[in-house]
Amino acid sequence: MSKASTMHLCGFLIAGPVVHSHAIWRNPKHPTDFLGLAHYVEIAQLLERGRFDFLFFADRLAIADRYGASHRTGIRHGDQDATRMDPVPLLGALAAVTSHIGLGATRSTTYDAPYNIAREFATLDHISAGRAAWNVVTSMNDGEALNFGNVPHLGHDERYDRADEFMEVAFGLWDSWDEDALVLDRENGIYADPDKVHYLNHCGKWFQSRGPLNIPRSPQGRPVVIQAGSSGRGKAFAARWSEVIFALQPSLERMRAFKADVSMALADVGRPPDSSKVLMAMMPFIGESRSEAEEKRDLHDSLVDPLVGLSTLAAHANADFSDLPLDASVETVQSSGSQGNLAALKSIAAGQSITIADAGRIYGRGVMCPRFVGTAKDVAEQMADTVTSGAADGFVVSPAFLPDTFEDFVGEVVPILQEKGLFRREYEGRTLRDHLGMIATKDK
Amino acid sequence: MSKASTMHLCGFLIAGPVVHSHAIWRNPKHPTDFLGLAHYVEIAQLLERGRFDFLFFADRLAIADRYGASHRTGIRHGDQDATRMDPVPLLGALAAVTSHIGLGATRSTTYDAPYNIAREFATLDHISAGRAAWNVVTSMNDGEALNFGNVPHLGHDERYDRADEFMEVAFGLWDSWDEDALVLDRENGIYADPDKVHYLNHCGKWFQSRGPLNIPRSPQGRPVVIQAGSSGRGKAFAARWSEVIFALQPSLERMRAFKADVSMALADVGRPPDSSKVLMAMMPFIGESRSEAEEKRDLHDSLVDPLVGLSTLAAHANADFSDLPLDASVETVQSSGSQGNLAALKSIAAGQSITIADAGRIYGRGVMCPRFVGTAKDVAEQMADTVTSGAADGFVVSPAFLPDTFEDFVGEVVPILQEKGLFRREYEGRTLRDHLGMIATKDK
Repeated sequence: MSKASTMHLCGFLIAGPVVHSHAIWRNPKHPTDFLGLAHYVEIAQLLERGRFDFLFFADRLAIADRYGASHRTGIRHGDQDATRMDPVPLLGALAAVTSHIGLGATRSTTYDAPYNIAREFATLDHISAGRAAWNVVTSMNDGEALNFGNVPHLGHDERYDRADEFMEVAFGLWDSWDEDALVLDRENGIYADPDKVHYLNHCGKWFQSRGPLNIPRSPQGRPVVIQAGSSGRGKAFAARWSEVIFALQPSLERMRAFKADVSMALADVGRPPDSSKVLMAMMPFIGESRSEAEEKRDLHDSLVDPLVGLSTLAAHANADFSDLPLDASVETVQSSGSQGNLAALKSIAAGQSITIADAGRIYGRGVMCPRFVGTAKDVAEQMADTVTSGAADGFVVSPAFLPDTFEDFVGEVVPILQEKGLFRREYEGRTLRDHLGMIATKDK
Repeated sequence: MSKASTMHLCGFLIAGPVVHSHAIWRNPKHPTDFLGLAHYVEIAQLLERGRFDFLFFADRLAIADRYGASHRTGIRHGDQDATRMDPVPLLGALAAVTSHIGLGATRSTTYDAPYNIAREFATLDHISAGRAAWNVVTSMNDGEALNFGNVPHLGHDERYDRADEFMEVAFGLWDSWDEDALVLDRENGIYADPDKVHYLNHCGKWFQSRGPLNIPRSPQGRPVVIQAGSSGRGKAFAARWSEVIFALQPSLERMRAFKADVSMALADVGRPPDSSKVLMAMMPFIGESRSEAEEKRDLHDSLVDPLVGLSTLAAHANADFSDLPLDASVETVQSSGSQGNLAALKSIAAGQSITIADAGRIYGRGVMCPRFVGTAKDVAEQMADTVTSGAADGFVVSPAFLPDTFEDFVGEVVPILQEKGLFRREYEGRTLRDHLGMIATKDK
């Protein structure tokens, strides 16, 4: 069981050359073989040695070409969408080379069927012995719609309405086998009890699915559900379904406000405040001294071209502002895409003269992810302050370089957190829900 | 490069309790943990030690409930569809614990989008360093349609028309990154050459997809394409797209006729006769003596209830004949589903009094898969005769028990085939196309 005083840690990844940091693949120390399995195996085993709750792959279903209405900038400079391998087969691979760390990935409710998604995560949960997690996204950008042309591109709130029904179907399928349905009487040839395997017969507005799933109930019953929506409708969706909430907030004050907001939203649907863990994204830069940490940060930031950040920002904001001069104020940019990121960017700009070029640099160096810069002790204390002040239940640790950032963090910060009693020394259970101190409930 | 005289071997699997044999999970020697990863890791490493070209997971997207219009029989006795985990995350796992053996799985063109499928196999091909294979199916049974209620259930030929367009889109996406598109100039921050990454802009009858894929070209360029359609339209589809053809033919004579048929169909579309390898399913029973092998077979067969075979047969034939008496002739059964299996079953029945109960026993013991029964030398000679007589390019080895059948086969039959010069002693390349003696062509 987790203790109220301890924190939860997630290692944030994309199966490609960049993560939040667009400098990842430009690591001056050594090339990053982001298309080969060995790279991810090394990271997963490192994070498991660091006793992380889970690792996680973000995903998206299109290259980015909103900026300049062309893929040229993003492909040339390597933006966040230039390359993303499919995280699900990759998580399968990591299940085989780890034993405890949770394994999470993004899947979209807009461009796949509930029966397919339910099978993928039930399988991952079986083959990982209870370590699967699903980050539910509704897919925000036009580029994704264009790759799946036979699906109507829905408005923001309508996508969440559809996602609600998607979750009802997926949960129904995961619950279609009772926990004790398998009999496995080899002598008499009785495989399972048909009275404990149920048709779903879902027939709704968006989906019909008869079920049952063709997979017995998995160790966790269903994957841990992650959500990161920061719009009003996204927050309501998260309050209903999430067990982990990812957030990216630029300051302690905004983290605290977000966490309070989540607690209220959970209370509104009758859930206790700690029933969904809020993990805040942060990018650590760790040095022997503060100035060494700052040098690492500055070296990292020097490797980010403003254009690569603008390409990703344009995709996230679903807006092409390539016609605006690079020295125009970021306040002039309008968006129909992810509402959280652009609002945060504008809030940084508030009262300051931040240009579009500046925005590209800021966005490219870490997609607005706050940075904890200093000695291992500094970083651990900033994390401790954040958690003990009630601004977060833990962190999504976002790397600046791979595996460098995680090596520093696991080697130097984790032991201090353990010493402070703020983080586990050993895994105390086998499933991801064990690590998160949660109990899988049969009925929602 | 493969030599004309050598054969190709595939290990046939389903990620569940049964394969062709419905007795797999009833193995009297020990329980089979078919939901745990260790079981599949053991099999994959065993087949790799046996230098198999690839292993393969068949799949289907629904439980079977055609027989008696209920899931009761299939779930109770454990038919072929009672449990199938998703093979794609499982292949990811096996990529991590093997280095040479090819990794194949079924995916349906009817219940998924080309962009999703293209990403899955491009990813598998990257993380396995060029070992991915895709068995293309069009999904034949009503149960699958009912789990994906928002997709129109199409007629047999129309499903193949749609599948043709699906393949055009998938191939287009796999070709959307030129082989040399990645630049990876870390110093100057040039990730890729946008002139070598192409939009697809596919807009057809069934699909629209703009592309490009968000994954650079994989080691094999695309997965090896497998097909098993045995209807007229299925054969035309296979002639156009396949590089490996799976067939299940009950006798040497029918194998030879099938292979000749494939050669003609390939010639009709201007492909050389060896451009698609025909692998014949067979289930070996290997003993120190013939009588010991026969005892193994009889023990195996005694563990198959007629009802479990009838449940699978009803699903494959898309027909409910539970109202027909078990002692009625199998000739009375009509079908709208897979046309190959039922035709083969009726051909066995020709001139003999095979009842529906007999059909259940025959179908349940191995879905009509021919059995090679004898000493290792007998089995190797039967295989050699089949290949040298031009009836097959190799075999899909279908286990009766796991890992028992593969242990016997790898330990005793493979060395004899190697001794005869009919099978590789070592892998001579790294990709599956290397093992199959094929060259990936850029354009089709």
